[in-house]
Amino acid sequence: MKLAVIGLGLIGGSIALTLKKNEFADQVIGIDKSEEHCRRALELGIADTIFPLEAGIREADIIVLAVPVDAAAEMLPRILDMCGKQVILDAGSTKVSVERAAANHPKRGRFVATHPIWGTEFSGPDAARTDEMKGRLTVICNPERSDKDALEIVEALYRSLGMNIVYQDAENHDLHAAYVSHISHLTSFALALAVLDKEKEEEQIFRLAGAGFQSTVRLAKSNPDTWVPIFKDNRSNVLDVLNDQIFFLRQMKKLIEMEEYETLHKLLTDANRIKGIIN
Amino acid sequence: MKLAVIGLGLIGGSIALTLKKNEFADQVIGIDKSEEHCRRALELGIADTIFPLEAGIREADIIVLAVPVDAAAEMLPRILDMCGKQVILDAGSTKVSVERAAANHPKRGRFVATHPIWGTEFSGPDAARTDEMKGRLTVICNPERSDKDALEIVEALYRSLGMNIVYQDAENHDLHAAYVSHISHLTSFALALAVLDKEKEEEQIFRLAGAGFQSTVRLAKSNPDTWVPIFKDNRSNVLDVLNDQIFFLRQMKKLIEMEEYETLHKLLTDANRIKGIIN
Repeated sequence: MKLAVIGLGLIGGSIALTLKKNEFADQVIGIDKSEEHCRRALELGIADTIFPLEAGIREADIIVLAVPVDAAAEMLPRILDMCGKQVILDAGSTKVSVERAAANHPKRGRFVATHPIWGTEFSGPDAARTDEMKGRLTVICNPERSDKDALEIVEALYRSLGMNIVYQDAENHDLHAAYVSHISHLTSFALALAVLDKEKEEEQIFRLAGAGFQSTVRLAKSNPDTWVPIFKDNRSNVLDVLNDQIFFLRQMKKLIEMEEYETLHKLLTDANRIKGIIN
Repeated sequence: MKLAVIGLGLIGGSIALTLKKNEFADQVIGIDKSEEHCRRALELGIADTIFPLEAGIREADIIVLAVPVDAAAEMLPRILDMCGKQVILDAGSTKVSVERAAANHPKRGRFVATHPIWGTEFSGPDAARTDEMKGRLTVICNPERSDKDALEIVEALYRSLGMNIVYQDAENHDLHAAYVSHISHLTSFALALAVLDKEKEEEQIFRLAGAGFQSTVRLAKSNPDTWVPIFKDNRSNVLDVLNDQIFFLRQMKKLIEMEEYETLHKLLTDANRIKGIIN
């Protein structure tokens, strides 16, 4: 199979490297508006060749759209226009807008909306990793809207990456993703800002940073070019979960202010229930 | 050296196991108000024998006080009353209150206030680990208030654990710890609560949890018996940093509400500066 990857960053690069290694892809055509990304993708073996968009799509059997979610929704109808029997999948963290962008297209069936749940706080071709998606979950949204052969090819692609597949409608996906992914990024960004704000006064504050701080602040290194479009796209769910997060932080603040430590203890014990759910 | 460890949990247990393995301690006397902890500490080889408080202190050369910070401040004067030439160190996450508890005691010099910056979200004797403190930092507060021989013994103990030592006054320690440790726990607890609150309605929300969520929510598994006393003890610094955290989350919320995505992008780019500081 000939794979075209649009967006040669963390996700597109990792998919390309792994599918080449597994021999699922005979050839990877790289497509990226950044010349620097194209150059690095060739150097790193992510892409075998670089093509402009239309020529790349014409050459490919499968097209992986791995660009920020706003760009994906904007590009998808144009890509479908250019397509014959090719299969297109996206890999974005939100699914409603890309679904909507394809909904009324005569070639909607060639598209499969997916979200592989893997990533790191790093970005660009140099962040791409081989085989790290193995064992993780990927979501395929609204599979009934894809052609049977297109769906089967995308399922085979994800099995080749070693991922487990779940099916979900796009609305549900975006709601859940706000709670178990998007808010983690926002709290991490806010934590970094709070600490960096303080650090202006206190240079040595970072001497005491332990593993706990590092794990909670890690996501604040994430690329705003990726994440602002996600927050924009999933605005209403993200605002709901931000409200919840602020509500609980304010509740903790009030309990500490009022010195109601027994109630605080009950609240934190309640939070401990997460033990039963997340390893 | 004979070591007495008061509090046979994550920290006391890990110190005991490592110092026995390194042969810094010939014998470990365990002291804990929980019979279950005493029993497990013997089974796990954390303690060689269990003594009541006063007898254990009388037998020991070095006493490690590894109980919640409020209990440490409460017990320390009584322990100093019972001491002759023994050395006592604590291992709590706040330092002002324990310093204050010892300040006017005639045997103040036998006490060394320390904070080994290591921990996990787990607690109790079963959470104890050998050698995991290696390479981490430990803070010794107000070393000038300890007798020279006591300080040297505690420095040797931490070197035997493989830890690097920094010196800081207690007030500075508690300020910094609020920013790089205590707030991480509060945001993690709040994140767990926000998600668990939602999960009542949506059972399957956790299917989508990725590594990012797991790392930001991990600390919400921490023991409230340990953490409520820390938040209480470091109340004013913790309230400051909670205010900062809520401020930045509200700013993000406002920018998403107003759809001011360029400003949001600038804010998140600003948060990215954490890259230069934390690996």
